[in-house]
Amino acid sequence: MKMLLSDNNSGVHPRILEAIYECNTGHEPSYGADRYTERARELIEEAFHTQADVYFVTTGTAANIVGLSGVLAPYEGVIAPDTAHINVDECGALERFGGVKILYVPNRHGKICHEDVEGFLASIGDEHQVQPRVISISQISELGTAYTVDEIGELADFVHANDMLLHMDGARLANAVVALDSSFKEMVTDTGVDLLSFGGTKNGMMMGEAIISFNKDISKGFKYVRKQAMQLVSKMRFISAQFIPYLEEGIWRENAAHSNRMAEYLKDELSYIADVEVDSRTMGNMLFVKIPEEWNRPLQEKYPVYITDMTKNIIRLVTSFDTTEGDIMDFVKSIKILSGDK
Amino acid sequence: MKMLLSDNNSGVHPRILEAIYECNTGHEPSYGADRYTERARELIEEAFHTQADVYFVTTGTAANIVGLSGVLAPYEGVIAPDTAHINVDECGALERFGGVKILYVPNRHGKICHEDVEGFLASIGDEHQVQPRVISISQISELGTAYTVDEIGELADFVHANDMLLHMDGARLANAVVALDSSFKEMVTDTGVDLLSFGGTKNGMMMGEAIISFNKDISKGFKYVRKQAMQLVSKMRFISAQFIPYLEEGIWRENAAHSNRMAEYLKDELSYIADVEVDSRTMGNMLFVKIPEEWNRPLQEKYPVYITDMTKNIIRLVTSFDTTEGDIMDFVKSIKILSGDK
Amino acid sequence: MKMLLSDNNSGVHPRILEAIYECNTGHEPSYGADRYTERARELIEEAFHTQADVYFVTTGTAANIVGLSGVLAPYEGVIAPDTAHINVDECGALERFGGVKILYVPNRHGKICHEDVEGFLASIGDEHQVQPRVISISQISELGTAYTVDEIGELADFVHANDMLLHMDGARLANAVVALDSSFKEMVTDTGVDLLSFGGTKNGMMMGEAIISFNKDISKGFKYVRKQAMQLVSKMRFISAQFIPYLEEGIWRENAAHSNRMAEYLKDELSYIADVEVDSRTMGNMLFVKIPEEWNRPLQEKYPVYITDMTKNIIRLVTSFDTTEGDIMDFVKSIKILSGDK
Amino acid sequence: MKMLLSDNNSGVHPRILEAIYECNTGHEPSYGADRYTERARELIEEAFHTQADVYFVTTGTAANIVGLSGVLAPYEGVIAPDTAHINVDECGALERFGGVKILYVPNRHGKICHEDVEGFLASIGDEHQVQPRVISISQISELGTAYTVDEIGELADFVHANDMLLHMDGARLANAVVALDSSFKEMVTDTGVDLLSFGGTKNGMMMGEAIISFNKDISKGFKYVRKQAMQLVSKMRFISAQFIPYLEEGIWRENAAHSNRMAEYLKDELSYIADVEVDSRTMGNMLFVKIPEEWNRPLQEKYPVYITDMTKNIIRLVTSFDTTEGDIMDFVKSIKILSGDK
Repeated sequence: MKMLLSDNNSGVHPRILEAIYECNTGHEPSYGADRYTERARELIEEAFHTQADVYFVTTGTAANIVGLSGVLAPYEGVIAPDTAHINVDECGALERFGGVKILYVPNRHGKICHEDVEGFLASIGDEHQVQPRVISISQISELGTAYTVDEIGELADFVHANDMLLHMDGARLANAVVALDSSFKEMVTDTGVDLLSFGGTKNGMMMGEAIISFNKDISKGFKYVRKQAMQLVSKMRFISAQFIPYLEEGIWRENAAHSNRMAEYLKDELSYIADVEVDSRTMGNMLFVKIPEEWNRPLQEKYPVYITDMTKNIIRLVTSFDTTEGDIMDFVKSIKILSGDK
Repeated sequence: MKMLLSDNNSGVHPRILEAIYECNTGHEPSYGADRYTERARELIEEAFHTQADVYFVTTGTAANIVGLSGVLAPYEGVIAPDTAHINVDECGALERFGGVKILYVPNRHGKICHEDVEGFLASIGDEHQVQPRVISISQISELGTAYTVDEIGELADFVHANDMLLHMDGARLANAVVALDSSFKEMVTDTGVDLLSFGGTKNGMMMGEAIISFNKDISKGFKYVRKQAMQLVSKMRFISAQFIPYLEEGIWRENAAHSNRMAEYLKDELSYIADVEVDSRTMGNMLFVKIPEEWNRPLQEKYPVYITDMTKNIIRLVTSFDTTEGDIMDFVKSIKILSGDK
Repeated sequence: MKMLLSDNNSGVHPRILEAIYECNTGHEPSYGADRYTERARELIEEAFHTQADVYFVTTGTAANIVGLSGVLAPYEGVIAPDTAHINVDECGALERFGGVKILYVPNRHGKICHEDVEGFLASIGDEHQVQPRVISISQISELGTAYTVDEIGELADFVHANDMLLHMDGARLANAVVALDSSFKEMVTDTGVDLLSFGGTKNGMMMGEAIISFNKDISKGFKYVRKQAMQLVSKMRFISAQFIPYLEEGIWRENAAHSNRMAEYLKDELSYIADVEVDSRTMGNMLFVKIPEEWNRPLQEKYPVYITDMTKNIIRLVTSFDTTEGDIMDFVKSIKILSGDK
Repeated sequence: MKMLLSDNNSGVHPRILEAIYECNTGHEPSYGADRYTERARELIEEAFHTQADVYFVTTGTAANIVGLSGVLAPYEGVIAPDTAHINVDECGALERFGGVKILYVPNRHGKICHEDVEGFLASIGDEHQVQPRVISISQISELGTAYTVDEIGELADFVHANDMLLHMDGARLANAVVALDSSFKEMVTDTGVDLLSFGGTKNGMMMGEAIISFNKDISKGFKYVRKQAMQLVSKMRFISAQFIPYLEEGIWRENAAHSNRMAEYLKDELSYIADVEVDSRTMGNMLFVKIPEEWNRPLQEKYPVYITDMTKNIIRLVTSFDTTEGDIMDFVKSIKILSGDK
């Protein structure tokens, strides 16, 4: 039985593991000078239909922090919704490593729009205030919602009109692309995202994240920043090789489509259960579900879940590439029992 | 044909890769709450015959920086030989992430002794000067030499008498233990090392390094520092599982013994060749060899090697767990041809 | 004619300037080992009726940052209202110098209470989240309001019950003490404030701020932090000597009482003018006044003022130790003319 | 009786104090928008015969750190002699605030030349190593020696040929200009110094240091860095006004000439005393004198002095703008008594 606690509780997709195995053939240049890393870079450029600077790292936090610290002077700030992973789930890594302030604003169901940012423009040139330089959005957001392609494009236009940059935390980008029936090109390259944390770990990799800079002027120092960030893995082929089947064989899409489908299935099943309220705004592989508080204890005994909103007793459910219909049915059955709905 | 450029050009030992495979069984709690991580922690405590705080990370630089930043206030400094990895090979990571100054002193063939440190004691209490707090030694050193158990013990006694701590960068600790016919317990625990970067990657792991604190008072904040250092890997079992056969089945010793033996073999073979001078002080799996400058170009065409001393034209040769006698013979043959010694 | 733009547009009180003159008598030990600094320290201890660690610095930002960075590990955070000076007026100095995150929450007219903080307690022990460690309040707040002695005591009790610390940004503490007819002892020492930024510059000094730690355990490293913060002034007597008449001769009270009185006078006069709305909740020497937007331009020509709320067109007016009734009358006259109220 | 311990034990030159007094006339815009700051900036441009970006701060450490942090990315380093003030007397401020590594090299009597730097050029482009970006020299050096104008010019040419910058710590620049019969223009502007810490405090100011950037491209962010460095003094006129008579009335030259003369006088007198060895290489207002170790205790009772070299028992003597011939004679008499030379 597999849990619905987080997509990082899952293991590694068999084809990805195979790729790791296959690259274990004798000696290769270290620190990313190997042919697997080169090939993975090419495949990323192909997937996004553009030239890009690509740096592989081992965690999503590292992707965010190396990229953001790489483009920001310490007196420049990044504007993000209060729910952003960089703001609440990275233990202040950006403040510590980058010396950078996060200018967080109330989220709109996990998202922000340019109206939330406009107030900061008045700070520009005022030495008493952090200079707004980057807007960071998460696609899919931490509340399971997604920006439409148009919304991303509008934010990109806004930031570029104000000499700022757009960063996307794409830990679950694949799920968004599938959910919105879009493509990496349409959603990221064509909208004008400048800097992407391209996540693989939550979608079937062992550990594999890429920092992708679509603007080579801003990423000149990234190789040094990655090393300072302790993320220059010596046997890098074992990170980058994972990206090869992931992109070349469409495993990214297959995995995301599967976990999205399982989330839809779960959403459907839960929506019929008394006393259960499913947040209908989510896309992708996360659900947010309001349940009666008295269910927490019996539920947690079997299914550890995050309570993301204590006051409303909302729990987060996450499906993975390896979640089965059986896993969903088991969970739904547990909920039904709690609901008295058999 | 395998190179002698670095032990991190090698791949993963088959048994370690197998352990990675074996732990890919469905869902496990993330961020190190899994049973593989627990088991790896236990095995480390067994190997060092003591209780310890253990934190797994993905790079040797991370092990050094998380540990040192975790014990040092930003106005405290770490004393190290100028050749130390933290000083010359980590792109200033400690200065950036920890805000900490490295007080480097001229090395004695890669090592330091307490006489090199005594001058800093005069700074204690002087607010104009960085406060000396940690001495960091590399075992095996970056110049291939090793501290004897007695030398480590003397340094530990010195630092503890002065309210300081002893850090060991043990990227190649296994090679030192084997070369000196010692044990982790004798060389590290019993001597009084406070903080160890316990390396696995250079000795057959894919990526696997552990920060081991032998003094729980100093490591209270390490879990936060590791997260801030972007090193809290979500699917951590794939790091920690590597340590299980490594320690349980003695792969650490087998690999280190093999690479040491290959280095000895290489040393013997080179010592007979005209115009080649082998530094006799090294132990473990690194050799430093003086060759005529005009050999550089033809040699590098076939064998990329680091020239570690430009003025004396000294090259570094490193053997790995997978270096074969054939690899050594091939290299020696190339050198003999250059030497005109057939 | 003197402006009402800020209390730091004023010069130095004559008696303070005299004290600077008087200490210019030949050589004195540098870096605070002089007798003026010793005397100023004693007077601060007398004023607060307690032993304390005292460090003099040149700016209010320095007092805040040295103190907060001195007590916080980089993975610990400070909770403050969004309006806090450390959050919006210090260009991210705490994030850069301390590597520390400010956990800012919506203010209640410039203040916070423990209900605003309780949510952060759930983060304690979670390595993904910044650890709440300090609550920082400004007395007088940036919106001109003041905490009552009881409110401060309640916050102090709350933080101490949760192993946290209470910091007070007292850039205008003197104004609060006078406005609430209290004393330094009652408002700070007896309530349980742990760390105070004790401001002098805005109340008649040239530049003079003191970091006061009421808990010597937390301030052991402050002397090093101050030096790293570039705030160890060599000829320190010229900073500390200002505090001598300030405290010994009651100039702090005289100046604060005067500027408070002038603010009251201004408040009274403005309250009768049509189309002017004065925020009645302020105390001390700042007023927040809503005026019609079309007055901005003609008013600013004569009186540069800060518009602190663009949407409501609220301006900030600040009186100083040297503001005269004539200055107030001149300003009121200008407003009356705009109002058509002659 | 005035000590010879340090030039920062002296007070403020009367004319400078008068300038402080004179600018205390009612309200002025804060944070450097006042007319005194504007005038001081103009005078600095006149003194150096060039346009420049000028930022006033309160300590020499602040001038060094704000300037260097302002031009360096955290993965770039500054090369300096091991004796540099930034390296040994600033408690690691550059490492903490700037996250920057100081690449220190053995000094040549307090100085370095380009041969000491060339080895670092091999690091350029290597992500494992800090990137050399600035060379920092102290004029007068911490060992009392001075760079000739030609030496400075050669270093400037070297750094510019390698896309690097030249920083000068000019805490005692005035003494060097006078000692070498040069000018600010010849010694700094014409040689090609990019960034200067222009000291006033040690030469008769109360506290007054200026960061001067001769290359406006590198100093675009300085105003934010200064604020983050807690050095944006609100009543800045009291810093900048000191520079007005200092430059306009030649007080810088008068004071430096006087203290240099007193040092020469002291050097002459000491050179005749048995068992006393005066370092003949110094210029300006510092002397380094070898005395028998048994003199330390009786001497220190009357004259606290720094022992700068414990092994050779070398003491440092510093004259000030207010040192008199009587002060010198008193000190010499004490030494003669110790020498048995009456």
